[in-house]
Amino acid sequence: MPQISKRGETVYASPIRKLAVFANQAEDRGRHVYYLNIGQPDIKTPEAALQKVRNFDLKVVKYAPAEGILSYRKRLIDYYREFEIELQANQIVVTTGASEAILFMMMSCLDAGDEVIIPEPFYAIYNGFAQMANISIRPITSQIETGFSLPQVADFERVLTSKTKAIFLCNPNNPTGCLYSKEELMALATFVKKHGLFLFCDEVYREFCYDGQAFFSVLNLPEMEDNVVVVDSISKRFSACGARVGAMVSRNPRVLESVVKYARFRLSPPLLGQWLAAGTIDEKPDYMETVKAEYDIRRKVLHERLKAMPGVTCYLPGGAFYCFVRLPVADTEDFCQWLLEDFEYKGQTLMLAPGAGFYATPGLGKDEVRIAYVLNSADLNKAMDCLERALKVYSSLEMKGKKNSESPRPKYELHRSIS
Amino acid sequence: MPQISKRGETVYASPIRKLAVFANQAEDRGRHVYYLNIGQPDIKTPEAALQKVRNFDLKVVKYAPAEGILSYRKRLIDYYREFEIELQANQIVVTTGASEAILFMMMSCLDAGDEVIIPEPFYAIYNGFAQMANISIRPITSQIETGFSLPQVADFERVLTSKTKAIFLCNPNNPTGCLYSKEELMALATFVKKHGLFLFCDEVYREFCYDGQAFFSVLNLPEMEDNVVVVDSISKRFSACGARVGAMVSRNPRVLESVVKYARFRLSPPLLGQWLAAGTIDEKPDYMETVKAEYDIRRKVLHERLKAMPGVTCYLPGGAFYCFVRLPVADTEDFCQWLLEDFEYKGQTLMLAPGAGFYATPGLGKDEVRIAYVLNSADLNKAMDCLERALKVYSSLEMKGKKNSESPRPKYELHRSIS
Repeated sequence: MPQISKRGETVYASPIRKLAVFANQAEDRGRHVYYLNIGQPDIKTPEAALQKVRNFDLKVVKYAPAEGILSYRKRLIDYYREFEIELQANQIVVTTGASEAILFMMMSCLDAGDEVIIPEPFYAIYNGFAQMANISIRPITSQIETGFSLPQVADFERVLTSKTKAIFLCNPNNPTGCLYSKEELMALATFVKKHGLFLFCDEVYREFCYDGQAFFSVLNLPEMEDNVVVVDSISKRFSACGARVGAMVSRNPRVLESVVKYARFRLSPPLLGQWLAAGTIDEKPDYMETVKAEYDIRRKVLHERLKAMPGVTCYLPGGAFYCFVRLPVADTEDFCQWLLEDFEYKGQTLMLAPGAGFYATPGLGKDEVRIAYVLNSADLNKAMDCLERALKVYSSLEMKGKKNSESPRPKYELHRSIS
Repeated sequence: MPQISKRGETVYASPIRKLAVFANQAEDRGRHVYYLNIGQPDIKTPEAALQKVRNFDLKVVKYAPAEGILSYRKRLIDYYREFEIELQANQIVVTTGASEAILFMMMSCLDAGDEVIIPEPFYAIYNGFAQMANISIRPITSQIETGFSLPQVADFERVLTSKTKAIFLCNPNNPTGCLYSKEELMALATFVKKHGLFLFCDEVYREFCYDGQAFFSVLNLPEMEDNVVVVDSISKRFSACGARVGAMVSRNPRVLESVVKYARFRLSPPLLGQWLAAGTIDEKPDYMETVKAEYDIRRKVLHERLKAMPGVTCYLPGGAFYCFVRLPVADTEDFCQWLLEDFEYKGQTLMLAPGAGFYATPGLGKDEVRIAYVLNSADLNKAMDCLERALKVYSSLEMKGKKNSESPRPKYELHRSIS
């Protein structure tokens, strides 16, 4: 019998999805599960975009150009201009979601063994692409006490080695919701430039900045044209995660040339998704304001509810639609599994993403979770009712010694199934 | 200025698309270009599938499950049953085109430095994914004299090393159109099993078998459940290349488990493409017969025309919609570029894929081209008129010494551009 590869054996298992089997089982038992584990909004996709798909009138669903449909890329130029980002069409390569943009960016800029510095906690799936590209992630830990603000330049300096090729940010941040300021980014840019590094930035939550704070793109850092590579996607801003339309944006001609070659041998980004994406341009201009206002309400609901729970550490996130929260439990992986397997409150429970998977430093994040406020306020409140109740029940189980002693819960690694 | 990666610098440039810039320029000069270089059929996508997209009625374009929509995977079970292939839903992972299936398969089964044996000429983009996965391709040369039939087991034995982990076939074959028989595959299976290898097979042209020959899937090889991994796609059979819906099929539980993990961190295959794919099931059952009959006509047209051209070596391909042809020219890369840059016949020219890029052995294929018979017979005949004429003109230029001597043509490597 042939053996699968070592990398296949050890490949990264997403902490966001690996509890899915327990959620399915909970639903099979008739429980309602509030999904706060994944960035899948319940917001409606723009009607104009859906209409564009319904009006699809080509007779052949052909390959799109490897770099994306030119007319769509030209519309993207207008989109970026709203953020005062000036681009040309050939500086935008349309990708199959931000996921593919990350992979092509890593492959084009980094060789096997190269190191990339990432503030942790970071979006867990970066681990998967780093493993595919065989590069090393050097984490710098950001702190819940500061709302996970961007670490100081000195912190980056401390982990810099001869193998360091890039810094990888996500702004506004997934999983913390932290919004980095222009000043912080300017300071980091000086460091990046000085050491001849790439500055990668995942800006898929660009739209989601609250409290009147402005978004500043790394694409607008002065004299950083050759250093900056941005990952983008329509998934979050237009609630179109399933369209699989992202982009890689850079002004570095050699990066672009390489990425286009990768794009060519995977042939084409999705054609229908690009039709949908093109349709978003025709949506009423107040769509985004309405969506943002809705997330702002949810953000405040979540924050108020969490603040009122004893032993919970949280903060008001400035961007995106996540909050990274410290819970009064020893092991959130066990807690999250227990929520799905054993807990219910009025026939309901919730799913959260355990925090440890968002750190590269072993041992960190074990008492933290990522909460995505992707449900409407009514559902979010019900989910928080469940969480509040669950923390009390779980705590009393821990006190009675019913946790971590007699018949410890089998970890999902032992009975993961494919379905 | 940061340097891009070595792999980014040397990454595989598709021979199928790298002449695209010259084709665009030819069109800009008002020439009509017949595109026989790429497997993009002019056949209509099934109307029922297009209708399914037009009827898209979800309000949110959500992530699909990482493994693909379950109801669609269940329909695929029925599809495979028509080929007497018995599968379960969890043995099918829906991917973003066959491209992604190839990448996930390589990552899951092979480690860096592992070797995979592939009969050459082979589908050129396998090179790109092999480079991404950092594995080595060991070619075995198949011969135009036998219509590029599957090499003998002894040929595989000869290149087997301790690093060999897999054999990778494409059946019916792209780029040769050769259809491998059950007997050939059975003989190879014994060898694969004896040496504990994987047997990868790209079967995206499964439908396209001519002259009453039956298709035999490696999934039906006895006692090879753990060895066989199949790459599939709806792109060719339903003329839906832009949908980006493929699949990886295996009965090896460890391969499946690994592939699902890769699938999870890229989050989702395209949702709209899967709607289209689901719609193909509702198409009239004679769709495929009609399409196949059409390709059969084109195949014969192409073969008759090529046979009549002096110095051209060809054969009647048994499957897919390609023919790999030897032309009476020294360097088909130069010839193909010349077709686009300098040649025209009644305002028309054609684009072909130079053969060398389909070989891993240096120096082979320089006088060969891949021709995709993806255009209707009328256009195909006009394209062959151009080719016939072009071979005469080009030959006289070579004889006059106007080729390869004074002011040699700048190779595209020198002035490749991104657009």
